[in-house]
Amino acid sequence: MTSLSDQVRQLARRAKSASEILAGVPAPVKNRALRAMADELEKSEPAVLRENEKDLRAARARGIGGALLDRLALNPQRLAEMSRGLREVAKLPDPVGELIKAWRRPNGLEIRKVRVPIGVIGIVYEARPNVTADCAGLCLKAGNSVILRGGSEAIHSNRMIFRCLERAALRQNLPRGSVNMISQTDRRGVEILLSQVGLVDLVIPRGGEGLIRQVVEKAKVPVIKQYKGICHTFVDEGADLKMAERICFNAKVQRPGVCNAMETLLVHRKAAPEFLPRMARRYLEAGVELRGDRRTRRVLKGFPVKAARELDWATEYLDLILSVRVVDSLKEAIDHIRRYGSGHSEAIVTRSKTRADQFLKNVDSACVYLNASTRFTDGGQFGLGAEIGVSTDKLHARGPMGLQELTTYKYIVTGHGQVRK
Amino acid sequence: MTSLSDQVRQLARRAKSASEILAGVPAPVKNRALRAMADELEKSEPAVLRENEKDLRAARARGIGGALLDRLALNPQRLAEMSRGLREVAKLPDPVGELIKAWRRPNGLEIRKVRVPIGVIGIVYEARPNVTADCAGLCLKAGNSVILRGGSEAIHSNRMIFRCLERAALRQNLPRGSVNMISQTDRRGVEILLSQVGLVDLVIPRGGEGLIRQVVEKAKVPVIKQYKGICHTFVDEGADLKMAERICFNAKVQRPGVCNAMETLLVHRKAAPEFLPRMARRYLEAGVELRGDRRTRRVLKGFPVKAARELDWATEYLDLILSVRVVDSLKEAIDHIRRYGSGHSEAIVTRSKTRADQFLKNVDSACVYLNASTRFTDGGQFGLGAEIGVSTDKLHARGPMGLQELTTYKYIVTGHGQVRK
Repeated sequence: MTSLSDQVRQLARRAKSASEILAGVPAPVKNRALRAMADELEKSEPAVLRENEKDLRAARARGIGGALLDRLALNPQRLAEMSRGLREVAKLPDPVGELIKAWRRPNGLEIRKVRVPIGVIGIVYEARPNVTADCAGLCLKAGNSVILRGGSEAIHSNRMIFRCLERAALRQNLPRGSVNMISQTDRRGVEILLSQVGLVDLVIPRGGEGLIRQVVEKAKVPVIKQYKGICHTFVDEGADLKMAERICFNAKVQRPGVCNAMETLLVHRKAAPEFLPRMARRYLEAGVELRGDRRTRRVLKGFPVKAARELDWATEYLDLILSVRVVDSLKEAIDHIRRYGSGHSEAIVTRSKTRADQFLKNVDSACVYLNASTRFTDGGQFGLGAEIGVSTDKLHARGPMGLQELTTYKYIVTGHGQVRK
Repeated sequence: MTSLSDQVRQLARRAKSASEILAGVPAPVKNRALRAMADELEKSEPAVLRENEKDLRAARARGIGGALLDRLALNPQRLAEMSRGLREVAKLPDPVGELIKAWRRPNGLEIRKVRVPIGVIGIVYEARPNVTADCAGLCLKAGNSVILRGGSEAIHSNRMIFRCLERAALRQNLPRGSVNMISQTDRRGVEILLSQVGLVDLVIPRGGEGLIRQVVEKAKVPVIKQYKGICHTFVDEGADLKMAERICFNAKVQRPGVCNAMETLLVHRKAAPEFLPRMARRYLEAGVELRGDRRTRRVLKGFPVKAARELDWATEYLDLILSVRVVDSLKEAIDHIRRYGSGHSEAIVTRSKTRADQFLKNVDSACVYLNASTRFTDGGQFGLGAEIGVSTDKLHARGPMGLQELTTYKYIVTGHGQVRK
């Protein structure tokens, strides 16, 4: 019997050698494989749902319910969405081979900067079985081989989905090892994957803060992270308060459980007396729990507003809870964001061009918004076609990551005998 | 007395807060500061040389000589080069604020992808004191604050150069903390710097393989590496042998001690009988030691060619030594490079367009060359104006790194009240 370490290493080696071929596979072949994967998933609906039922039973037996159970659950619609996702990715333009830049040197050398795949990408994720198909599709389209490592709670679903993907890929003559899964639930598997320097080029963790911290802690290979999104909206003095109300309501309430939802509302003291009571009424109607600083609670006297504690400013609620603070100035708002923000998405609602520019320039987040909801930080909403995540890192990729962010580049230099003097 | 850990942390905090201001400093101010730094270095020539003499004395006392001592030594010309370097950087276009891309979404949102500084960059380096000025200048121009940590062998020179740079920066009203140096020689200083997650955004090690491995091993913050350059040149069948001779000679001999020099020559078996004896003669005249595989030695019977061992293919000699191998095919050449190459720079000399394309496509290195010397892998030669290093990583930056690679981007999204549906 080979050890887990040997197995993962062998998988990584196979993935690496597949990636060398995949890098040169033309778009139509990749697209055909993506569509074949979608077909195969559809055909295998009963089998996938049966396996998913096993995961659900096991989860229920362990007392898991609510949101977590819902994330785990598949049904015909969700499966159809996975297939549709793969077909959408097939329709996107192939990023590989794109000429990023070309120039000529005085000595006649022609330099071309060309987009190429990264190589082998590891995806470490939790709960949602759809990640299996989504990430495999995106990595494949960008010419990378992928090593999937899902959570043990979805192991039966993931294995069956993976089997469909792999079968379709092989039938379309993609190299063996293009799509891989570590199907052992042993946690050491992740650690071993994270230490395959030279074989695994990048790992993207997808899941809660705990998972991401673990991955970063253990990783010897490069990681692109999506830490928490503590997103802020600042309502400036003189802002169009109707617009502010619409934006702030959307940013908090439309889908509170995601990283681009607002967690903290900052209001200029001159806007607070008129804006806060209007806004509070709407929030409370929608079931939002409010936690305010001293001044917020004074303005909202009579409303049920809890006292915000220091910890609140640094918390990603992912829920119908909002911390609210009244600030004296634009500068104070920016300083608050610098101190507590997570570099994800922040918005200002203002009528002043100068103050907007100051905010947009000085807030160092992946996405900064003027008069729009932070909820737009998303590959689809940005028009990237699909997204593999939202990076809160600053290197390589920042903000929504689409196909392009799953590639790197190389320089191709053509000469006619030039040597260096 | 505060601990080293507190000191470094405080330095990093100061650098972070300076970086927030630096990000918005207009180009003319940065350029003026760069020129002031150059002036200050020139004015301080006697002081810098005096401090450098201390380092040289200490090195000699420790029995250091030859190349290492030469790297450490400053003289009026080298100091003038440092100043010229800073003035050149001042002339380069400012990468900050560059509009990378802009588009409009169907809902009217305007999305702009804009180049911004990374923040705080740490540079860990050895021996050459000129790195102090070169790196500080490049980081500053790209709007980043920098934390320099040079080797103990150059500590006196580095401290004095740093003092000049800092004095000039402050006199030009750059924020305090724009240019920083860890001037303690305690090795733990590097480790502490490498663990400043949230304060230090990137560390670039510059030095030998040992230093780079240490940095990668200890780093909790992102690192861009420049590992060894085991560069290959493949002379194809039917190649223009005069051209091949010129390129291969240049790639090995012109400056053997640098990362883009060739370490292994691969020759197609059909080209070997004519090419190898000609080439060997030139190499031997230039004092190059040859280490060949069995077939090379057979073709070069009568020439002094040592037997290449397995280890030779994986060695970066950085010296007048060359490993030589005869291969049966283009594929064998590519496979050899895949196995032993370091992803830096490889060249093919050929007359065949098809075979050139195959090589350029299938060799996964930062820079691939057709009919030119690998010695061109260099920021200056590429026309980037200046370089902070050559990345052998695939993420964020690959190949020669100029000002652009010292930046990241953010998305600025402008709306008029849009909310997500």
